[in-house]
Amino acid sequence: MPVTPSRLERLRRLARRRCDALLITHLPNVLYLTGFRGSSGVVAVAPEAAALFVPALYRTQAREEAREVEVRVAPDPLRGVARWLWARRARSVAYEDLHLTLGQLELVRRELGGRAELVAGGRWVEVMRATKGPEEIARIRAAQALTARVFEEVLPLVRPGVLERDLAAEIDYRLRRHGGQKPAFDTIVASGPRAALPHGRAGGKRLGQNELVIFDLGVILSDYHSDMTRTVFLGDPPARVKRIYRAVQQALERARKAVRAGVPARAVDAAARRHLERQGLGRYFIHGTGHGLGLEIHEDPRVARTSDARLAAGNVITLEPGVYIPGWGGVRIEDVVVVGWRGARTLTPLSTELPCL
Amino acid sequence: MPVTPSRLERLRRLARRRCDALLITHLPNVLYLTGFRGSSGVVAVAPEAAALFVPALYRTQAREEAREVEVRVAPDPLRGVARWLWARRARSVAYEDLHLTLGQLELVRRELGGRAELVAGGRWVEVMRATKGPEEIARIRAAQALTARVFEEVLPLVRPGVLERDLAAEIDYRLRRHGGQKPAFDTIVASGPRAALPHGRAGGKRLGQNELVIFDLGVILSDYHSDMTRTVFLGDPPARVKRIYRAVQQALERARKAVRAGVPARAVDAAARRHLERQGLGRYFIHGTGHGLGLEIHEDPRVARTSDARLAAGNVITLEPGVYIPGWGGVRIEDVVVVGWRGARTLTPLSTELPCL
Repeated sequence: MPVTPSRLERLRRLARRRCDALLITHLPNVLYLTGFRGSSGVVAVAPEAAALFVPALYRTQAREEAREVEVRVAPDPLRGVARWLWARRARSVAYEDLHLTLGQLELVRRELGGRAELVAGGRWVEVMRATKGPEEIARIRAAQALTARVFEEVLPLVRPGVLERDLAAEIDYRLRRHGGQKPAFDTIVASGPRAALPHGRAGGKRLGQNELVIFDLGVILSDYHSDMTRTVFLGDPPARVKRIYRAVQQALERARKAVRAGVPARAVDAAARRHLERQGLGRYFIHGTGHGLGLEIHEDPRVARTSDARLAAGNVITLEPGVYIPGWGGVRIEDVVVVGWRGARTLTPLSTELPCL
Repeated sequence: MPVTPSRLERLRRLARRRCDALLITHLPNVLYLTGFRGSSGVVAVAPEAAALFVPALYRTQAREEAREVEVRVAPDPLRGVARWLWARRARSVAYEDLHLTLGQLELVRRELGGRAELVAGGRWVEVMRATKGPEEIARIRAAQALTARVFEEVLPLVRPGVLERDLAAEIDYRLRRHGGQKPAFDTIVASGPRAALPHGRAGGKRLGQNELVIFDLGVILSDYHSDMTRTVFLGDPPARVKRIYRAVQQALERARKAVRAGVPARAVDAAARRHLERQGLGRYFIHGTGHGLGLEIHEDPRVARTSDARLAAGNVITLEPGVYIPGWGGVRIEDVVVVGWRGARTLTPLSTELPCL
């Protein structure tokens, strides 16, 4: 995490009209702003100072990792932050309403004792995070490259009789051995009829001859996530498999061509969806076309029918159309692209052709 | 997950005086009540009916997994649930204030349009989950056994020159290959001075001769978590290492002896803490003595100085005293025990003696 002095400063500027202090509880936002990677910590941002509160067990780690903030230790970091804000006489404090729970709000309200107004802060940090800088894009690119490499390494092991979960264990092991921090999410290996479950985790099923197998894998590398899906066929694919695969591949291509800074995200979703609809497969495409990724596996902007986001240069998004036919199986292909003014730049160094094993 | 008809029914009885319907958004609680394992789903519990709302991509999985509830599909499950409650004319709806965010509450409030009062529901499901049945205890015992087995398998690989993160990858791989769903948390391998970081993730450091190494590992097996810590020494331990190790081992023993149904959880913490204080090590024990575990890695009851819980028969808790000396290193030993009326029953089939490699 390169923490430039400007992240906290940019946040202050974004929020200036709404509040005089901010309460940041969402851990990926804490990481983004301060560099602290622990599992418990809260940040307070006031006009002239910022503090990261952590429990004692993170004292040393926080002092090593955190930049641009004073590190303080408190048994309950949220209470510590609230008291810090009270002592600094903050009058209006913005909280992250997408993340703060009602229980947490109650605690903060009690500690502030009516001295400060609490206001819903929206998604300022999420908005900042959605636009990636060159260093962040380089990290996601490296994570995608590692992911593609592991997928290619594991392909020779993909054959009838192998357990889905053993392939997933193999993938996760290699993601780690090649330097990844950990898998970006539960690796999906879904074969045969299970490929009709978009989130079918790798289970105790063995791969069978003449089955489609969906692999969805990713890794966290230098704090940034990758995400990649490929579908393979075990055997000589029949016409229906070829036709559906081709339709999904073309839908991905349509989505990619629709990507450009300034375009509504839902137009990208529509490009993929319309193509599948024209092929008579629309009702089998049961999720959105993509999502942003970075310090989290799902972040802004969403690329879906109901998204009201507009793509911006520096957004990094997945494009992952799929077709899922209950009882039969499914196909999904997913690439990650960077949004630019002239179109999409792919970060996934791997062909989208159907591997037949 | 065995879902007995009584879980939903017991919840209704617990909540009857406070509300006529409940909104369950916390996924481990959704799993506990319905058996659904997906990453998006919300449950509504009304007096005569209960419904699980999931997005379309979980339609098939939810129908396969969920018991005792009607499965409904909605693009936004929370909105779907709110509309369902509106249609059923619920007058007072309890939400999980420890989990519901302010953004979610706002959405529910809009959908219910003033027809129902929204009340903070507290931790009913958490309270139910804290007391485990025999089947749940058997699952945690199996997960602990698998964890101990993997630790013993990996011990021969623990030697100077090995990368912390390679050992962690090896552990995670074996946890999976022996049937685990996934690691219960980021496996900790922290050596030398890094052992002074209680949550020091496995990193790019190589193990050195005459170093302490803390291993903290666990697995999810049949949905239930295990958690186990052992500290090893690479070489012939000097007197100070032996003395500190022995103090932590005795602190664990004191805590274990203090465990009994009806006892305040903080008395168990005090037993461990007092022992370390008497050894002059109190200020290096910088976290609580333990926590409940089950469908989550951290659940009720907390075993800490500030805990106001009272232990109950069927609680399953960790006991994990530790000593962390900045710049020098650390020692932690952790077992999992079941609380009974006559004391603690351990679920960790492994000696607490110091392995010297």
